[in-house]
Amino acid sequence: MRGVVMYAPGDVRVEERDVPRIVEPSDAVIRVAAACVCGSDLWPYRGIERLKGPRPMGHEYVGVVEQVGDEVRDIHVGDFVVGSFFASDNTCEICRAGYQTHCVNRKPIAAGGAQSELLRVPLADGTLVATPGPPDADLVPSLLAASDVLGTGWFAAVAAEAGPGKTVAVVGDGAVGLLAVLAARRLGAERVIAMSRHADRQKLALDFGATDIVVERGDEGVARIKELTGGYGAHSVVEAVGTQESMTQAIRATRPGGHVGYVGVAHDVSLNGTELFFSGVHLHGGPAPVRRFLPELIDLIWTRAIDPGKVFDRAVPLDQAAEAYRAMDERSAVKVLLRP
Amino acid sequence: MRGVVMYAPGDVRVEERDVPRIVEPSDAVIRVAAACVCGSDLWPYRGIERLKGPRPMGHEYVGVVEQVGDEVRDIHVGDFVVGSFFASDNTCEICRAGYQTHCVNRKPIAAGGAQSELLRVPLADGTLVATPGPPDADLVPSLLAASDVLGTGWFAAVAAEAGPGKTVAVVGDGAVGLLAVLAARRLGAERVIAMSRHADRQKLALDFGATDIVVERGDEGVARIKELTGGYGAHSVVEAVGTQESMTQAIRATRPGGHVGYVGVAHDVSLNGTELFFSGVHLHGGPAPVRRFLPELIDLIWTRAIDPGKVFDRAVPLDQAAEAYRAMDERSAVKVLLRP
Repeated sequence: MRGVVMYAPGDVRVEERDVPRIVEPSDAVIRVAAACVCGSDLWPYRGIERLKGPRPMGHEYVGVVEQVGDEVRDIHVGDFVVGSFFASDNTCEICRAGYQTHCVNRKPIAAGGAQSELLRVPLADGTLVATPGPPDADLVPSLLAASDVLGTGWFAAVAAEAGPGKTVAVVGDGAVGLLAVLAARRLGAERVIAMSRHADRQKLALDFGATDIVVERGDEGVARIKELTGGYGAHSVVEAVGTQESMTQAIRATRPGGHVGYVGVAHDVSLNGTELFFSGVHLHGGPAPVRRFLPELIDLIWTRAIDPGKVFDRAVPLDQAAEAYRAMDERSAVKVLLRP
Repeated sequence: MRGVVMYAPGDVRVEERDVPRIVEPSDAVIRVAAACVCGSDLWPYRGIERLKGPRPMGHEYVGVVEQVGDEVRDIHVGDFVVGSFFASDNTCEICRAGYQTHCVNRKPIAAGGAQSELLRVPLADGTLVATPGPPDADLVPSLLAASDVLGTGWFAAVAAEAGPGKTVAVVGDGAVGLLAVLAARRLGAERVIAMSRHADRQKLALDFGATDIVVERGDEGVARIKELTGGYGAHSVVEAVGTQESMTQAIRATRPGGHVGYVGVAHDVSLNGTELFFSGVHLHGGPAPVRRFLPELIDLIWTRAIDPGKVFDRAVPLDQAAEAYRAMDERSAVKVLLRP
């Protein structure tokens, strides 16, 4: 079967790989209907994260179950399924508290590489959620978004305690940031400020329910958020980038007692303890427990209450994965869907 | 009037100072019934925090109102009052959300120096809470504790979301840590693990409701907490020291999705963004909004439901303040009460 492998920064190839098979009795193998390139895939692509060798790529996927192991009970051959980027048992104490990405038995989906025709999913019952039936074609991008970017943006908004009466600011205008805008509005936020200086992303943010756009960054961006919030800062701030600047901006834009939800994978970020102490903010984030939100998100998509698939502004056949990476690296596309 | 002034590390003097008077119409002047030395007073005493010149000391106090400004409505001459270490208006949006230490009009009590016979308290109506009447003498230490260490320990336990069914670990066996043990139990925690290697402090922790004592520190302490919690880590961890080691220990001892409540004033602490990201914990803390909790705490003390005054294991006349600092620096006393 064909699958994407990254050999070095900028060197992404689609090549013949071994056909995945059931290894553990709790596994499933799915035929990938759609996959995509993640903002976090760009870290090794840009050489910021080191590759130890050729790496199968991809951890976002929807598809049809082809095979299940003997112990799989809830997922069946033929189901159309959405899964998260960490396999989880969904039964341990951490999973039951809603933190499936930290499951004591978790396994990274990226190990198999979801940018491929077929994918082995460990702990299928705890990881995959079946849709009510085969989806209409136009729902596939949205279901794919639920697999990571929507689930991550949603978690960020929940971690930032977006809700009625709140003003939410979103740092980062990638797919996750844009979908955090959507999530914040769905969660009832009164005002959602998207921080973006790109016209196409500003437009998507407004489509997703942003009420304000702030183009300034860093300290100027913080000053602008304060100006818009009576000098206090936002109640809730989503951080969806993962750099020192974005994290600092997020903390400083939050009022004392407010909440920062951070989901940008931290790269060389160091938080000054004294500044954090005196900020008085709440900080919560990390790898999003997407599995917690999947049933609810699938339902919202299925009933067409939300349309997160709009973040995919391009779709290419799997064989053109290198072009998909290039477009996202150059920011000529927000997010590219891959069709195996 | 007599008051404590710190001139240099280790150099604490009691000297004649100007009698405080009403400056703003929202001020009160109180005759201090009891004050004390705070763990945070030891930072400049030990030379870790720089003094820019002679500094009046003290920010914990109870006393009797002697004078009020023209605009003071709720506090009256003759009231016995407890206040917090930041004066707050208690009316701004930040105060109303329960973060009075971040009040947009806040003023540090330390500017006046509460280790003295008389103290000017700005924003009296928003800062002071009167007791139901003159307290019995044995309640005075507990009411004084409410002014900072109890209020801070309480906030830490609330920030760590201590509650029914939870296991709470407390890093730090100073007065704040010990009172966080008391708070965690009052808030309904099932299990409270005090981390301490000092017999006298262990005993106090047990008196305050600790169910377990852990003597190990650092990575060994973390391993011990995990051992006691089925390998997961504690649901809630209170950090009440303020060093790199204690903060790291607190974060690592918390399970993913759990809560760290940190109130140790951070000194040269730097948090690794990547570690924090992958820990999946909630982090909240800072200077405790003691004012939020004062009415409830005074009520618990007044009805003798709690006895936080036990943290004072010594009381000396104000004139012996230097000895009080020495005893706390050497850790031969947990907390020393000063009688003006």
